[in-house]
Amino acid sequence: MENTIKKQTEAQVITPEQFLEHYQGHRRLTRRVIEAFPENEFFNHSIGGMRPFAEMTKELLAIAVPGLTEIVSGKIGDFDENRDYGKTKAQFLEKWDEDTEKINELWAQIPEERYQEHITLFGQYEGTVQSSILYFIDNEIHHRGQGYVYLRTLDIEPPFFYDRS
Amino acid sequence: MENTIKKQTEAQVITPEQFLEHYQGHRRLTRRVIEAFPENEFFNHSIGGMRPFAEMTKELLAIAVPGLTEIVSGKIGDFDENRDYGKTKAQFLEKWDEDTEKINELWAQIPEERYQEHITLFGQYEGTVQSSILYFIDNEIHHRGQGYVYLRTLDIEPPFFYDRS
Repeated sequence: MENTIKKQTEAQVITPEQFLEHYQGHRRLTRRVIEAFPENEFFNHSIGGMRPFAEMTKELLAIAVPGLTEIVSGKIGDFDENRDYGKTKAQFLEKWDEDTEKINELWAQIPEERYQEHITLFGQYEGTVQSSILYFIDNEIHHRGQGYVYLRTLDIEPPFFYDRS
Repeated sequence: MENTIKKQTEAQVITPEQFLEHYQGHRRLTRRVIEAFPENEFFNHSIGGMRPFAEMTKELLAIAVPGLTEIVSGKIGDFDENRDYGKTKAQFLEKWDEDTEKINELWAQIPEERYQEHITLFGQYEGTVQSSILYFIDNEIHHRGQGYVYLRTLDIEPPFFYDRS
Protein backbone atom coordinates (compact mmCIF):
# COMPACT_ATOMS: atom_id res chain seq x y z
CA MET A 1 0.00 0.00 0.00
CA GLU A 2 2.77 2.41 0.91
CA ASN A 3 4.55 1.56 -2.30
CA THR A 4 1.38 2.20 -4.29
CA ILE A 5 0.92 5.65 -2.74
CA LYS A 6 4.57 6.49 -3.32
CA LYS A 7 4.30 5.42 -6.93
CA GLN A 8 1.21 7.58 -7.49
CA THR A 9 2.89 10.60 -5.94
CA GLU A 10 6.01 10.14 -8.02
CA ALA A 11 3.89 9.99 -11.15
CA GLN A 12 2.17 13.31 -10.37
CA VAL A 13 3.78 16.47 -11.74
CA ILE A 14 2.22 18.20 -8.74
CA THR A 15 -0.03 16.54 -6.18
CA PRO A 16 -3.23 18.19 -4.89
CA GLU A 17 -1.52 18.62 -1.48
CA GLN A 18 1.50 20.33 -3.04
CA PHE A 19 -0.80 22.52 -5.14
CA LEU A 20 -2.69 23.63 -2.00
CA GLU A 21 0.55 24.27 -0.13
CA HIS A 22 1.79 26.30 -3.11
CA TYR A 23 -1.35 28.45 -2.94
CA GLN A 24 -1.29 28.85 0.83
CA GLY A 25 2.43 29.69 0.74
CA HIS A 26 1.64 32.54 -1.63
CA ARG A 27 -1.26 33.63 0.56
CA ARG A 28 1.05 33.73 3.60
CA LEU A 29 3.36 36.03 1.65
CA THR A 30 0.45 38.23 0.55
CA ARG A 31 -0.63 38.44 4.19
CA ARG A 32 2.80 39.79 5.08
CA VAL A 33 2.52 42.38 2.31
CA ILE A 34 -0.83 43.55 3.75
CA GLU A 35 0.81 43.76 7.18
CA ALA A 36 3.74 45.75 5.77
CA PHE A 37 1.49 48.62 4.66
CA PRO A 38 0.87 51.45 7.09
CA GLU A 39 -2.85 51.58 7.98
CA ASN A 40 -3.68 54.65 5.90
CA GLU A 41 -1.57 53.73 2.90
CA PHE A 42 -3.14 50.28 2.65
CA PHE A 43 -6.42 51.98 1.84
CA ASN A 44 -5.22 55.11 0.05
CA HIS A 45 -1.75 54.83 -1.50
CA SER A 46 -1.67 54.28 -5.23
CA ILE A 47 0.54 54.87 -8.26
CA GLY A 48 -0.22 55.58 -11.90
CA GLY A 49 -3.98 55.75 -11.34
CA MET A 50 -4.08 52.16 -10.08
CA ARG A 51 -6.10 50.88 -7.13
CA PRO A 52 -4.84 51.00 -3.53
CA PHE A 53 -3.66 47.61 -2.23
CA ALA A 54 -6.84 47.24 -0.11
CA GLU A 55 -8.89 47.22 -3.34
CA MET A 56 -6.59 44.61 -4.89
CA THR A 57 -6.96 42.55 -1.71
CA LYS A 58 -10.75 42.74 -2.10
CA GLU A 59 -10.33 41.27 -5.56
CA LEU A 60 -8.20 38.40 -4.20
CA LEU A 61 -10.79 37.69 -1.50
CA ALA A 62 -13.56 37.79 -4.12
CA ILE A 63 -11.78 35.09 -6.12
CA ALA A 64 -10.32 32.57 -3.63
CA VAL A 65 -13.15 31.23 -1.47
CA PRO A 66 -16.00 32.17 -3.84
CA GLY A 67 -14.15 30.53 -6.75
CA LEU A 68 -13.34 27.35 -4.85
CA THR A 69 -16.89 27.22 -3.45
CA GLU A 70 -18.17 27.28 -7.01
CA ILE A 71 -15.72 24.56 -8.07
CA VAL A 72 -16.83 22.35 -5.16
CA SER A 73 -20.57 23.03 -5.37
CA GLY A 74 -20.97 23.41 -9.13
CA LYS A 75 -23.32 26.34 -8.45
CA ILE A 76 -22.55 29.62 -10.21
CA GLY A 77 -21.77 32.40 -7.74
CA ASP A 78 -21.22 36.15 -8.02
CA PHE A 79 -17.85 37.67 -8.68
CA ASP A 80 -18.06 40.68 -6.37
CA GLU A 81 -14.84 42.54 -5.67
CA ASN A 82 -16.64 45.32 -3.79
CA ARG A 83 -17.62 43.37 -0.68
CA ASP A 84 -17.14 45.30 2.55
CA TYR A 85 -14.57 43.79 4.89
CA GLY A 86 -14.32 46.78 7.20
CA LYS A 87 -12.23 49.89 7.50
CA THR A 88 -9.10 48.52 9.14
CA LYS A 89 -6.20 46.33 8.12
CA ALA A 90 -6.96 44.13 11.13
CA GLN A 91 -10.41 43.37 9.74
CA PHE A 92 -8.92 42.45 6.35
CA LEU A 93 -6.38 40.18 8.03
CA GLU A 94 -9.12 38.51 10.07
CA LYS A 95 -11.07 37.80 6.87
CA TRP A 96 -7.83 36.61 5.22
CA ASP A 97 -7.25 34.09 8.01
CA GLU A 98 -10.86 32.88 7.96
CA ASP A 99 -10.47 32.25 4.23
CA THR A 100 -7.22 30.36 4.78
CA GLU A 101 -9.19 27.77 6.74
CA LYS A 102 -12.08 27.74 4.26
CA ILE A 103 -9.65 27.16 1.39
CA ASN A 104 -8.24 24.11 3.19
CA GLU A 105 -11.75 22.76 3.77
CA LEU A 106 -12.86 23.35 0.19
CA TRP A 107 -9.65 21.90 -1.28
CA ALA A 108 -10.27 18.64 0.57
CA GLN A 109 -13.54 18.37 -1.33
CA ILE A 110 -11.93 18.43 -4.81
CA PRO A 111 -11.28 14.84 -5.90
CA GLU A 112 -8.03 14.33 -7.83
CA GLU A 113 -9.84 13.44 -11.06
CA ARG A 114 -11.66 16.78 -11.12
CA TYR A 115 -8.56 18.94 -11.81
CA GLN A 116 -8.88 18.28 -15.55
CA GLU A 117 -12.62 18.96 -15.61
CA HIS A 118 -13.78 21.84 -17.80
CA ILE A 119 -15.66 24.53 -15.90
CA THR A 120 -17.00 28.04 -16.39
CA LEU A 121 -16.32 30.14 -13.31
CA PHE A 122 -18.53 33.01 -12.17
CA GLY A 123 -20.64 32.27 -15.23
CA GLN A 124 -17.99 33.50 -17.66
CA TYR A 125 -14.39 32.30 -17.20
CA GLU A 126 -13.71 29.06 -19.04
CA GLY A 127 -10.93 26.66 -18.13
CA THR A 128 -10.19 23.49 -16.25
CA VAL A 129 -10.20 23.25 -12.47
CA GLN A 130 -6.39 23.30 -12.48
CA SER A 131 -6.06 26.23 -14.89
CA SER A 132 -8.67 28.20 -12.93
CA ILE A 133 -6.88 27.69 -9.62
CA LEU A 134 -3.52 28.51 -11.24
CA TYR A 135 -5.17 31.71 -12.45
CA PHE A 136 -6.24 32.56 -8.87
CA ILE A 137 -2.62 32.17 -7.76
CA ASP A 138 -1.09 33.98 -10.75
CA ASN A 139 -3.48 36.89 -10.29
CA GLU A 140 -2.50 37.13 -6.62
CA ILE A 141 1.24 37.10 -7.47
CA HIS A 142 0.62 39.74 -10.16
CA HIS A 143 -1.16 42.19 -7.85
CA ARG A 144 1.14 41.48 -4.93
CA GLY A 145 4.09 42.36 -7.18
CA GLN A 146 2.38 45.70 -7.72
CA GLY A 147 2.03 46.00 -3.94
CA TYR A 148 5.80 45.58 -3.70
CA VAL A 149 6.25 48.68 -5.87
CA TYR A 150 3.77 50.58 -3.67
CA LEU A 151 5.78 49.60 -0.59
CA ARG A 152 9.07 50.62 -2.22
CA THR A 153 7.66 54.06 -3.05
CA LEU A 154 6.72 54.34 0.63
CA ASP A 155 10.32 53.48 1.53
CA ILE A 156 9.20 50.22 3.07
CA GLU A 157 11.22 47.04 2.47
CA PRO A 158 8.77 44.36 1.20
CA PRO A 159 8.94 40.82 2.64
CA PHE A 160 11.28 38.36 0.93
CA PHE A 161 9.60 36.95 -2.17
CA TYR A 162 11.03 33.49 -1.62
CA ASP A 163 9.82 33.18 1.99
CA ARG A 164 6.51 31.30 1.98
CA SER A 165 6.63 30.11 5.59
CA MET B 1 -4.31 2.65 -25.92
CA GLU B 2 -6.31 5.84 -26.37
CA ASN B 3 -8.30 5.06 -23.26
CA THR B 4 -5.13 4.46 -21.29
CA ILE B 5 -3.71 7.83 -22.32
CA LYS B 6 -6.99 9.57 -21.50
CA LYS B 7 -7.08 7.92 -18.10
CA GLN B 8 -3.50 9.01 -17.31
CA THR B 9 -4.25 12.59 -18.34
CA GLU B 10 -7.39 12.69 -16.22
CA ALA B 11 -5.45 11.48 -13.23
CA GLN B 12 -2.84 14.24 -13.52
CA VAL B 13 -3.53 17.47 -11.62
CA ILE B 14 -1.49 19.15 -14.35
CA THR B 15 0.27 17.35 -17.18
CA PRO B 16 3.83 18.22 -18.27
CA GLU B 17 2.39 19.59 -21.53
CA GLN B 18 -0.07 21.82 -19.66
CA PHE B 19 2.68 22.96 -17.32
CA LEU B 20 4.88 23.95 -20.32
CA GLU B 21 1.97 25.73 -21.99
CA HIS B 22 1.27 27.56 -18.72
CA TYR B 23 4.88 28.77 -18.63
CA GLN B 24 5.01 29.71 -22.30
CA GLY B 25 1.67 31.53 -22.00
CA HIS B 26 3.16 33.67 -19.25
CA ARG B 27 6.30 34.21 -21.33
CA ARG B 28 4.17 35.41 -24.25
CA LEU B 29 2.54 37.95 -21.94
CA THR B 30 5.91 39.08 -20.59
CA ARG B 31 7.09 39.51 -24.18
CA ARG B 32 4.17 41.87 -24.79
CA VAL B 33 5.10 43.84 -21.67
CA ILE B 34 8.68 44.24 -22.99
CA GLU B 35 7.22 45.39 -26.32
CA ALA B 36 4.93 47.89 -24.57
CA PHE B 37 7.86 49.83 -23.08
CA PRO B 38 9.28 52.73 -25.09
CA GLU B 39 12.91 51.96 -26.03
CA ASN B 40 14.50 54.34 -23.54
CA GLU B 41 12.15 53.59 -20.65
CA PHE B 42 12.71 49.84 -20.96
CA PHE B 43 16.33 50.46 -19.97
CA ASN B 44 15.99 53.49 -17.71
CA HIS B 45 12.55 53.94 -16.15
CA SER B 46 12.25 52.88 -12.54
CA ILE B 47 10.22 53.59 -9.41
CA GLY B 48 11.07 53.52 -5.73
CA GLY B 49 14.73 52.72 -6.32
CA MET B 50 13.87 49.48 -8.12
CA ARG B 51 15.54 48.14 -11.27
CA PRO B 52 14.42 49.14 -14.77
CA PHE B 53 12.39 46.44 -16.53
CA ALA B 54 15.38 45.53 -18.74
CA GLU B 55 17.26 44.46 -15.60
CA MET B 56 14.31 42.39 -14.42
CA THR B 57 14.17 40.81 -17.87
CA LYS B 58 17.85 39.90 -17.54
CA GLU B 59 16.97 38.10 -14.32
CA LEU B 60 14.17 36.16 -16.05
CA LEU B 61 16.52 35.17 -18.88
CA ALA B 62 19.15 34.13 -16.33
CA ILE B 63 16.66 31.74 -14.73
CA ALA B 64 14.62 30.11 -17.51
CA VAL B 65 17.01 28.39 -19.92
CA PRO B 66 19.97 28.15 -17.49
CA GLY B 67 17.66 26.68 -14.82
CA LEU B 68 16.06 24.15 -17.15
CA THR B 69 19.46 23.27 -18.62
CA GLU B 70 20.64 22.44 -15.12
CA ILE B 71 17.51 20.37 -14.44
CA VAL B 72 18.03 18.40 -17.65
CA SER B 73 21.80 17.98 -17.43
CA GLY B 74 22.22 17.69 -13.67
CA LYS B 75 25.29 19.93 -13.95
CA ILE B 76 25.44 23.00 -11.72
CA GLY B 77 25.49 26.22 -13.72
CA ASP B 78 25.98 29.88 -12.89
CA PHE B 79 23.15 32.17 -11.93
CA ASP B 80 24.21 35.30 -13.78
CA GLU B 81 21.65 38.07 -14.13
CA ASN B 82 24.19 40.48 -15.62
CA ARG B 83 24.65 38.81 -18.98
CA ASP B 84 24.80 41.27 -21.88
CA TYR B 85 21.95 40.87 -24.37
CA GLY B 86 22.59 44.12 -26.20
CA LYS B 87 21.45 47.71 -25.99
CA THR B 88 18.09 47.50 -27.76
CA LYS B 89 14.68 46.05 -27.01
CA ALA B 90 14.87 44.20 -30.33
CA GLN B 91 17.96 42.33 -29.13
CA PHE B 92 16.21 41.37 -25.89
CA LEU B 93 13.17 40.16 -27.83
CA GLU B 94 15.39 38.12 -30.15
CA LYS B 95 16.99 36.43 -27.14
CA TRP B 96 13.53 35.95 -25.61
CA ASP B 97 12.34 34.12 -28.73
CA GLU B 98 15.46 31.98 -28.94
CA ASP B 99 14.84 30.94 -25.35
CA THR B 100 11.20 30.12 -26.10
CA GLU B 101 12.44 27.41 -28.46
CA LYS B 102 15.14 26.22 -26.09
CA ILE B 103 12.60 25.90 -23.27
CA ASN B 104 10.44 23.66 -25.48
CA GLU B 105 13.46 21.51 -26.32
CA LEU B 106 14.61 21.24 -22.71
CA TRP B 107 11.10 20.51 -21.42
CA ALA B 108 10.83 17.53 -23.75
CA GLN B 109 13.87 16.08 -21.97
CA ILE B 110 12.25 16.08 -18.50
CA PRO B 111 10.62 12.67 -17.94
CA GLU B 112 7.32 12.80 -16.04
CA GLU B 113 8.76 10.97 -13.03
CA ARG B 114 11.42 13.64 -12.51
CA TYR B 115 9.02 16.44 -11.43
CA GLN B 116 9.07 15.18 -7.84
CA GLU B 117 12.84 14.77 -7.76
CA HIS B 118 14.71 16.87 -5.19
CA ILE B 119 17.28 19.19 -6.70
CA THR B 120 19.52 22.09 -5.71
CA LEU B 121 19.52 24.74 -8.44
CA PHE B 122 22.45 27.02 -9.17
CA GLY B 123 24.21 25.30 -6.31
CA GLN B 124 21.95 26.83 -3.68
CA TYR B 125 18.15 26.73 -4.24
CA GLU B 126 16.58 23.57 -2.88
CA GLY B 127 13.28 22.18 -4.07
CA THR B 128 11.73 19.65 -6.39
CA VAL B 129 11.77 19.98 -10.17
CA GLN B 130 8.11 21.09 -10.08
CA SER B 131 8.53 23.59 -7.25
CA SER B 132 11.62 25.04 -8.94
CA ILE B 133 9.84 25.53 -12.26
CA LEU B 134 6.81 27.00 -10.46
CA TYR B 135 9.24 29.41 -8.83
CA PHE B 136 10.59 30.44 -12.26
CA ILE B 137 7.02 31.24 -13.34
CA ASP B 138 5.99 32.94 -10.08
CA ASN B 139 9.08 35.11 -10.16
CA GLU B 140 8.29 36.14 -13.73
CA ILE B 141 4.68 37.03 -12.82
CA HIS B 142 5.94 38.97 -9.78
CA HIS B 143 8.37 41.15 -11.73
CA ARG B 144 6.03 41.53 -14.68
CA GLY B 145 3.39 42.84 -12.26
CA GLN B 146 5.94 45.46 -11.27
CA GLY B 147 6.45 46.21 -14.97
CA TYR B 148 2.70 46.89 -15.19
CA VAL B 149 3.07 49.64 -12.57
CA TYR B 150 6.03 51.08 -14.51
CA LEU B 151 3.90 51.17 -17.67
CA ARG B 152 0.97 52.79 -15.84
CA THR B 153 3.24 55.55 -14.53
CA LEU B 154 4.32 56.11 -18.15
CA ASP B 155 0.64 56.44 -19.10
CA ILE B 156 0.85 53.23 -21.14
CA GLU B 157 -1.97 50.70 -20.96
CA PRO B 158 -0.40 47.29 -20.16
CA PRO B 159 -1.50 44.18 -22.10
CA PHE B 160 -4.47 42.23 -20.73
CA PHE B 161 -3.29 39.97 -17.90
CA TYR B 162 -5.61 37.15 -18.93
CA ASP B 163 -4.45 37.06 -22.56
CA ARG B 164 -1.79 34.36 -22.92
CA SER B 165 -2.16 33.80 -26.66
